[in-house]
Amino acid sequence: MFSVLLTLISLIMQTDYKLISHILDKKNIGSNLEIRGWLKTKRDSKGISFLNINDGSCLAGIQVIADSIVLNNYQSLRADLTTGCSLRVLGRLVKSPAKGQEVELKAEEITIYGPAPATDYPLQKKRHSFEFLRSISHLRPRTNTLSAMTRIRSRLAQSIHDFFRNHDFYQIHTPVITTSDCEGAGEMFTVTSLDLSKPDGEHNPLDYSHDFFGCPASLTVSGQLEAEAYALALGRVYTFGPTFRAENSHTSRHLAEFWMVEPEMSFFDLDNDMDLAENLIKFLVKAVFEQCREDLDFFCRFIDKSLRKKLNAVLKNDFTRISYGEAVNLLLKSRRNFAYPVAWGIDLQAEHERFLAEEYFKGPVIVFAYPKSIKPFYMRLNDDNKTVAAMDVLLPGIGEIIGGSQREERLEQLTARMAECAINTADYEWYLDLRRYGTVPHAGFGLGFERLIQFVTGLTNIRDVIPFPRTPGRAEISSGKAEG
Amino acid sequence: MFSVLLTLISLIMQTDYKLISHILDKKNIGSNLEIRGWLKTKRDSKGISFLNINDGSCLAGIQVIADSIVLNNYQSLRADLTTGCSLRVLGRLVKSPAKGQEVELKAEEITIYGPAPATDYPLQKKRHSFEFLRSISHLRPRTNTLSAMTRIRSRLAQSIHDFFRNHDFYQIHTPVITTSDCEGAGEMFTVTSLDLSKPDGEHNPLDYSHDFFGCPASLTVSGQLEAEAYALALGRVYTFGPTFRAENSHTSRHLAEFWMVEPEMSFFDLDNDMDLAENLIKFLVKAVFEQCREDLDFFCRFIDKSLRKKLNAVLKNDFTRISYGEAVNLLLKSRRNFAYPVAWGIDLQAEHERFLAEEYFKGPVIVFAYPKSIKPFYMRLNDDNKTVAAMDVLLPGIGEIIGGSQREERLEQLTARMAECAINTADYEWYLDLRRYGTVPHAGFGLGFERLIQFVTGLTNIRDVIPFPRTPGRAEISSGKAEG
Repeated sequence: MFSVLLTLISLIMQTDYKLISHILDKKNIGSNLEIRGWLKTKRDSKGISFLNINDGSCLAGIQVIADSIVLNNYQSLRADLTTGCSLRVLGRLVKSPAKGQEVELKAEEITIYGPAPATDYPLQKKRHSFEFLRSISHLRPRTNTLSAMTRIRSRLAQSIHDFFRNHDFYQIHTPVITTSDCEGAGEMFTVTSLDLSKPDGEHNPLDYSHDFFGCPASLTVSGQLEAEAYALALGRVYTFGPTFRAENSHTSRHLAEFWMVEPEMSFFDLDNDMDLAENLIKFLVKAVFEQCREDLDFFCRFIDKSLRKKLNAVLKNDFTRISYGEAVNLLLKSRRNFAYPVAWGIDLQAEHERFLAEEYFKGPVIVFAYPKSIKPFYMRLNDDNKTVAAMDVLLPGIGEIIGGSQREERLEQLTARMAECAINTADYEWYLDLRRYGTVPHAGFGLGFERLIQFVTGLTNIRDVIPFPRTPGRAEISSGKAEG
Repeated sequence: MFSVLLTLISLIMQTDYKLISHILDKKNIGSNLEIRGWLKTKRDSKGISFLNINDGSCLAGIQVIADSIVLNNYQSLRADLTTGCSLRVLGRLVKSPAKGQEVELKAEEITIYGPAPATDYPLQKKRHSFEFLRSISHLRPRTNTLSAMTRIRSRLAQSIHDFFRNHDFYQIHTPVITTSDCEGAGEMFTVTSLDLSKPDGEHNPLDYSHDFFGCPASLTVSGQLEAEAYALALGRVYTFGPTFRAENSHTSRHLAEFWMVEPEMSFFDLDNDMDLAENLIKFLVKAVFEQCREDLDFFCRFIDKSLRKKLNAVLKNDFTRISYGEAVNLLLKSRRNFAYPVAWGIDLQAEHERFLAEEYFKGPVIVFAYPKSIKPFYMRLNDDNKTVAAMDVLLPGIGEIIGGSQREERLEQLTARMAECAINTADYEWYLDLRRYGTVPHAGFGLGFERLIQFVTGLTNIRDVIPFPRTPGRAEISSGKAEG
């Protein structure tokens, strides 16, 4: 008898169960089917339980009617039917008499895979603070907010590939382990295979000649320089991968590990670059409206009531484009008391960017032609000899989401800028080769993927828009149990 | 006059130039258009030069007719028209009288962006060894082989996202920096922000409490464990990102940094897992046939004459599925003199896998139910108590391309296995939580993306299927110039 049951179960395992996202509309009414998922809530009423089952395929659960007369094992199941338990239900899909749902499933058989004891399970049916949820990052995708965020994040990642495929770009996987510091900021993590608990000698520093790569190696801060090499062969390329900053920053805006999208285009100038950046953001916002309706509704309702308006504003209008000089003048004329005083030559701070995007223009702004002194060596020098062909895209509520530039394609100007920045050209001979052999005007930018997710969800802390955030003091997943 | 010219050029920059991939068929014949790219070859004949221009958008170049009578700057351009120089051409697209091409471009204006002096430029028109090309990894995408590989790699990456989107999966970005060692192999790179040139004390090991994360951190070897947490919330998820091994291996099969695709599915058993693996490989091979015809032809012609046959064999037949026990028996019966002797319990070596896939079955083979002693702790124990629900997919010429398993979802069995493997459960409390709360049968696998690219291109060295390979002693990009 027991082995017959096992055989049956293994047969059922091979048949197709249905995802809840596929059966919530009317077209399956009348069919017998199986679902597998987790119990979100239960309501009992006169020998009948109403179970809300979710399988993560969409935000909505399906209502399952568990009738104690139909289900002969119902009494034995009851104690385990608690929030978070996993189960499969076979039954008949019928039109629901209840409001707010088209269909419901009349259970004919229920099997529990695993319980989630109510005494123990950290995610009981109540609101949990984002901070608490961060302490159980392995369980938090089971909440509405994090699962909705994850689905939007996934759709946007896929839409990024769609956008670039539509525009004849090729994706390049640039290396994570690198020996060059693209931004020259020096905030890089070291990568080593040396045994750090046994330094080489008592008074000696570690000997990199014994290290895996035979030299000091780091985690990349940007794939741009390597992407340039491929743009100068394939025309239009992009990278989309993890990047790193060993910046000891405890704000809600920074992560030590984050994902960046970096297109790099031969034959593009700064105007083309700004056009592409604007088109990309509009395409992605449109993708959220079209492909993530249910999850977007959730964020509009529970996280940010002004979200829909903000997103619509991005789609409807051209982004404002002003030069850095004009931006500085606007900030000076505003007579605001900024914490960081405004003068030509300063790096724009969050407060300045917010004034421009949120108060003055009330929408996306692209600022271009920044002073060369505050920008990296690889940006193209303008004819005024003071500014470079840089551009930043600022979004209301987010600040800088994109930073880009036309690259310095002229060998002479590039080596002069490197000398000004005290960069050792010997480390960049390969990069200079790109100017020695068949150089072309080219441009590119970097889009912070987590900032984008923040923008389209309204989530204010960047730690809530990535599955396992890496921040100072935090690279482990803690157990609810251990901390509880 | 000069400034008028500049204005004109900047106007042209804003207009749309055409990608060569868009104009090679007949439908644009008669139009005036502009292309931008690099000179591959030049042939002179009686006042006319035939230039082959490539822009990386496809393998083929376009033939440009440069007539010294039409082009009044032709004499001054001539010296710079060498292999590798970059240029733009305005002209009229006409039907080509030559064989092997539908169209050619009659130049009316040619501008050179940047020269590539023939005395200097390392990529002259001749065959270069793969080894030499690896020494100039920033320039090698300009060769036919590497650019064709890159286009196929990009299409396959995008097809992976298509496949999983079609099958209702969500993509998860699992972290690169981690504190857990999924495979327990101990071959991990250390990540630190400590200044290694100044160890803390003369006789002390480095003090991790002062390190960025406050504990030892490493580069991930797999996103599986974290993906499991998300599969148990969202149902079907996948990761596609870089993974790392600090393995001091100098073979043509290993990289220190490589990309892996890792799907993880709740409610899937091992059979479902094998079905998905087989479907994925077939889908991707089909994508190459459909989307990369030109580049595939190149590899079939110049790299591996049997490639098309090998790829067709994958599409036409079901993959053979045999248990590890059956595989061992076949190897024993073969009476081959294997370098590594065969007995039940050994880990299958490359020579054994090749015998099975290349000689015995002459096609893809899935081997399942491996001895638990040679597999990691997280694989589901079979009822025989000796084997686990593991599976490897072996491809002819490649060996193992996929390794996967049904995961141990039972808390008791999992902790028992961890004890057997001497794993400290305290480090995995969060992972055990996934079995404590709403556990479900689930399965997944990892596909080595570079191995896949090798399979569909016939390239035998894994260093030639990734833009910037990371191997022992190699994390820098060397300049052709520096190395001479």
